[in-house]
Amino acid sequence: MKARVDITLKNGVLDPQGKAIQHALGALGFDGVNDVRQGKVIELQLAGDDRAAAEAALKEMCEKLLANTVIEDYRIKVL
Amino acid sequence: MKARVDITLKNGVLDPQGKAIQHALGALGFDGVNDVRQGKVIELQLAGDDRAAAEAALKEMCEKLLANTVIEDYRIKVL
Repeated sequence: MKARVDITLKNGVLDPQGKAIQHALGALGFDGVNDVRQGKVIELQLAGDDRAAAEAALKEMCEKLLANTVIEDYRIKVL
Repeated sequence: MKARVDITLKNGVLDPQGKAIQHALGALGFDGVNDVRQGKVIELQLAGDDRAAAEAALKEMCEKLLANTVIEDYRIKVL
């Protein structure tokens, strides 16, 4: 079973990587880019067929390891 | 207009970050994680309402700056 976790900085948390990308896009001549935020995407290949169990396990993985929940939000999607 | 770009390593390209996550999940007791790949997600806030123009601009941004097309794939989604 494939799953996908998106990890993004919470709103209000400063995102220097995003700002750097925004600045670089401006320097390359791309106008109209008002904001850029960068996050992570983690794709997992899980054993088993139980979607509910997979979602529960993924939530625990996010809380324990994948995301820093002080400054990051996560979204889980079992594909 | 919001847009989202997913950037992932091409199949076959070694992903040490993903392997590190997989190993750490195993050490934390999460069994059945057969593979992990890590990528980036970039969320952009663009001026204007022209979806086709935005998609064309995003494609150019990916080719020129956001993705390293030798080793990375990108997926564009205008939201």
